[in-house]
Amino acid sequence: MSAFSIQDAAQTFARVDFVMVQPSHPGNVGAAARAIKTMGFERLHLVAPRFTDVTRHSEAIALASGAVDVLENAQIHGTLSDALGTSTLAFALTARPRDLGPSVCDIRQAADASLEHLQSHIHARIAIVVGTERSGLTNQDIALCQRICHIPANPHYSSLNVAQALQLAAWEMRYALASSQGLTLLPSTDKSAVAAGSEPASNEKIQALLTHWEEAMIAVEFLNPAHPKKLMPRTRHLFMRSGLTNDEVDMLRGVCTAMIRNSRQKGTK
Amino acid sequence: MSAFSIQDAAQTFARVDFVMVQPSHPGNVGAAARAIKTMGFERLHLVAPRFTDVTRHSEAIALASGAVDVLENAQIHGTLSDALGTSTLAFALTARPRDLGPSVCDIRQAADASLEHLQSHIHARIAIVVGTERSGLTNQDIALCQRICHIPANPHYSSLNVAQALQLAAWEMRYALASSQGLTLLPSTDKSAVAAGSEPASNEKIQALLTHWEEAMIAVEFLNPAHPKKLMPRTRHLFMRSGLTNDEVDMLRGVCTAMIRNSRQKGTK
Repeated sequence: MSAFSIQDAAQTFARVDFVMVQPSHPGNVGAAARAIKTMGFERLHLVAPRFTDVTRHSEAIALASGAVDVLENAQIHGTLSDALGTSTLAFALTARPRDLGPSVCDIRQAADASLEHLQSHIHARIAIVVGTERSGLTNQDIALCQRICHIPANPHYSSLNVAQALQLAAWEMRYALASSQGLTLLPSTDKSAVAAGSEPASNEKIQALLTHWEEAMIAVEFLNPAHPKKLMPRTRHLFMRSGLTNDEVDMLRGVCTAMIRNSRQKGTK
Repeated sequence: MSAFSIQDAAQTFARVDFVMVQPSHPGNVGAAARAIKTMGFERLHLVAPRFTDVTRHSEAIALASGAVDVLENAQIHGTLSDALGTSTLAFALTARPRDLGPSVCDIRQAADASLEHLQSHIHARIAIVVGTERSGLTNQDIALCQRICHIPANPHYSSLNVAQALQLAAWEMRYALASSQGLTLLPSTDKSAVAAGSEPASNEKIQALLTHWEEAMIAVEFLNPAHPKKLMPRTRHLFMRSGLTNDEVDMLRGVCTAMIRNSRQKGTK
């Protein structure tokens, strides 16, 4: 059983991404860059920002303070789905919990779960996702995340802005990851020997599975595209929650292929 | 030690004071007011602020957002010694630990120690003290506090401003105080109102689903009974792990029924 070395620690921090969906104010992106850098993180992603080139906005530069490098290296994506392509465990950060959707945890529980996930799977990547300043994440955004993560603020005044919310989430992530250093927390199994098939599937793979699943449901006439009801949202919820491995995704896609082929054989007879 | 009641909870939060020593920017005081109010606190103290009447500064009002009441009720003191008059345990919040002075803890340890202190002594009061924006607390200020409290930020970039530092400290205090009171930080769902469909499925139901799934896999010719490989053990592992609800079992059995019916229609044509 080996302890984390300093190098491992830096590598572990580099496996956490912070994603801002449709930020409207460059200043908030600057403040977010500063917030995550103070906690030792540096990977910032912007999904469809409502401005061009954030580094040209003086307010963003001013609020980023010494974290302009994080701002300059921020990656821009067209959709949240693209931004989460390599993520294996994404948390939708919300002020308020929702009735539907993935299971809810608070940011400390999210940080503990992230540490465990990163230690258990060598290719695992964490994403912390925040929504627009005004309205937060849409249900569609949330459906792309495995978990909902809630900041239990004052119920009478829970007015945290996105940078403050990211500050708290990054702090909890830092505390969990840093606390684990020097402790013999890595499990004794040799992770390099774990077959790739047992690794958690990326978000991209799960989205592709869901698309394939929908086709198969239509093929076997379980899903009527004219009246889809809530079949696909419910299936999405189930698949996202289950921590599917690469092997399991492949197996389920094999099932889809068989369903579609089987229904076509019927049609050609 | 008796459990806190809901009323005790509000009283306990009122026993925590936040003290800013010689703040120079009204905006930072506004942001600090917002930060502590989001975490359920309201007692803000200013020691020798470098401006008169903070509520007359538009930047303070803007950054306080909905926490102007905290700003208006902030108490002004001539010296830190005055501000700490009724405090029984004061933490000097610093970015970097010092070699000299009171013993050092991090803000989580400070929050845990505060909780214990408040529970042990009915008249105890906690103070969290931050220094000026530029230079932090003087050694003289620190000497007036029982403990030094450190925020273990990124050693290469520990640039937290006073409002961010207070946000993190207030969050840790909230988490410790609220957790101790059996107050669920996560919103309580009324368990009696949970629909039966959302309840976890019994083992019996999952076994029946697996039997049905196997029939469907054979029907769509994904599973060859003569060479079953490990398909069913792997599916069992997945379904058992996923915490299926009754509704989800019903949905998946609907899929099985559709697959089987679909394959039979083929056979009869």
